[in-house]
Amino acid sequence: MKKILKAILPGGFKANGISCGLKKSGKPDLALIYSQFPALASAKFTTNSILAAPLIVCKEHLKLAKRFQAVLVNSGNANCFTGKSGIKDAKISASYLAQELKIAKNSVLVNSTGIIGKRLDVAKIKQGLRKLVLGLSSSGIHKAKMAIMTTDTFAKEISLSLKIKGKPVQICGIAKGAGMIAPNMATMLCFIMTDAAITQGALDKSLGAAVDKSFNCISVDGCMSTNDTVLVLANAAAGNKVISNGADLRNFSQGLESLCLDLAKMVVADAEGATKFIQIDVIQAKHIQEAKKVALSIANSVLFKTAVFGQNPNFGRVAAAVGASGFKIKAEQLKIKLGSLKGKQVKLTVSLSRGKAKCTVYTSDLTPEYIKINAQYN
Amino acid sequence: MKKILKAILPGGFKANGISCGLKKSGKPDLALIYSQFPALASAKFTTNSILAAPLIVCKEHLKLAKRFQAVLVNSGNANCFTGKSGIKDAKISASYLAQELKIAKNSVLVNSTGIIGKRLDVAKIKQGLRKLVLGLSSSGIHKAKMAIMTTDTFAKEISLSLKIKGKPVQICGIAKGAGMIAPNMATMLCFIMTDAAITQGALDKSLGAAVDKSFNCISVDGCMSTNDTVLVLANAAAGNKVISNGADLRNFSQGLESLCLDLAKMVVADAEGATKFIQIDVIQAKHIQEAKKVALSIANSVLFKTAVFGQNPNFGRVAAAVGASGFKIKAEQLKIKLGSLKGKQVKLTVSLSRGKAKCTVYTSDLTPEYIKINAQYN
Repeated sequence: MKKILKAILPGGFKANGISCGLKKSGKPDLALIYSQFPALASAKFTTNSILAAPLIVCKEHLKLAKRFQAVLVNSGNANCFTGKSGIKDAKISASYLAQELKIAKNSVLVNSTGIIGKRLDVAKIKQGLRKLVLGLSSSGIHKAKMAIMTTDTFAKEISLSLKIKGKPVQICGIAKGAGMIAPNMATMLCFIMTDAAITQGALDKSLGAAVDKSFNCISVDGCMSTNDTVLVLANAAAGNKVISNGADLRNFSQGLESLCLDLAKMVVADAEGATKFIQIDVIQAKHIQEAKKVALSIANSVLFKTAVFGQNPNFGRVAAAVGASGFKIKAEQLKIKLGSLKGKQVKLTVSLSRGKAKCTVYTSDLTPEYIKINAQYN
Repeated sequence: MKKILKAILPGGFKANGISCGLKKSGKPDLALIYSQFPALASAKFTTNSILAAPLIVCKEHLKLAKRFQAVLVNSGNANCFTGKSGIKDAKISASYLAQELKIAKNSVLVNSTGIIGKRLDVAKIKQGLRKLVLGLSSSGIHKAKMAIMTTDTFAKEISLSLKIKGKPVQICGIAKGAGMIAPNMATMLCFIMTDAAITQGALDKSLGAAVDKSFNCISVDGCMSTNDTVLVLANAAAGNKVISNGADLRNFSQGLESLCLDLAKMVVADAEGATKFIQIDVIQAKHIQEAKKVALSIANSVLFKTAVFGQNPNFGRVAAAVGASGFKIKAEQLKIKLGSLKGKQVKLTVSLSRGKAKCTVYTSDLTPEYIKINAQYN
């Protein structure tokens, strides 16, 4: 497996990003990812019951169609809590793009990120579509990665190549997210493109496992978003023997998981206002659910995160967060090892002394800057 | 029912508070509440599985004895995550006080609040006990209320009188708590003294109901403490007909609930760094558990609290918090009414349009000041 920290689109994919005027700042706010070959898609969405309109439309299209060619993403507006109009707006945007690309509208997937509760300005999107499509290119992914950003301070991108029975297969991912980051998942959008040939079942399984160990193991502020999406498109352009199970699937899944974990860590590293990147290892738990819940209870403890910001090695707050996780963990079972708080990287290991399961979760500190950013957002 | 915002000890109770040197600042840090008549006791403790040592000792004494005469409380040290030594320290403190008061050691209850993970300096407590006991008086509750404070900026106190079959009965409560405040319960200590004659069963039932609707309905930072305690002592000095059920119990319970709710609101009003007092009414829920969980999901949303601090009427963050509560509530069922954010009092009403149950929860905004206070704590 070879990785580089830069987005390189696999064969058959093109992308672009432009400013269509949704962001007052004039920054890029409309992205398009396009596959010249109809691609399989698999997606994981937020478990928040208040689902943003584009996610409702995506779910519908994923049921109606089997292959997809385009993903249209806008930033600056989440198109969430916008009622039936919001759903109409998402559908119309998909239709306009389908016309422009001369493809079926169900083969377009849509996504949005930004402010919640304000209607999407579809006219601006419509006006931008021609330019967006005309500018499609394989290097356009670098424009796309900028156009999906909101409060992000840097673009998150990664590419890797692996071999399936000797044939090179590429996977590339871009992501955005810097706040409202919680497990299941985050205001977090991630788009993954691969030229691998793979069955739908194998792709679903592989993505599920990868997301569980990456995006579902990060937390910035414990706030679950309404728009979270991890979407993978697989267009088979690599011409490899179709991946379905066994060593090939393990190989591909390992790659996908590694790529997702790297992107998830980048999201945490870019957490709004954060000064620290915190790795929490919970070990010797009864089962993985216990390890994960305990780790997330610590990761979401406002007091722990504040203590790390203050470089204040407060073991008590870790213990209190463990005890609040809902498991009957006794104080005498608890071993807490907190590394130095001076640097940017902080490592916390919590042993529960009751089993062999473990889980690693990533989070950031909570700072006055985070509050300033989020108090002034709109 | 007559209420005043001042602690007035009911008949048969005395109290005192002194500085014994646990707090470096020299502020009062040791409190004693004493009943000359052995009193029934009922208590609600944190559900955090990491239990502070004094709570372990309290639970033991509550099992071993039926009547109690003294509550010893120190601030400046939580005596939590202190292992077997911590339990020994709590027991020895109780024993020393029992000797000083010439009462059975099991009739002493102990409590602590302050920093977690540091051993309690029992020698300092021992040295202070004589002075603490000698100074007991009915007005000493005003010294006690100061000695239980940590980061509190004001003392929380209230008294009320009601009539049981024509006989006046008094209830008085003092509380502390300003951070690490979450449901079930808060770093929150509350001591309630009543001269009512009441059965153990009625007292337990009454306290359980009162705490559910007061201290379990507040949240400052979503962090569940290891030391939370609400303790009521009932010494029967009022000479009323023993309360056991029916109208008398309803009458007493109403008083106790009202007193607890007032104290709980004071805790929220004193939330660390807060600039706003937020009331969240969730109405038209399927059942009360749903209403409460949704209300607390909003109250614990870092993004919602930050928005209120910024006087930023962000409905989307409310919707996202509702959706994250775990219930399948759809956007179209949700009606959000957010009052003005300009003043100190903010009122949010969320209707779920799916039933008749409701719940009110109180919280505060999250501010850069909160982070400063908690980053620098020890």
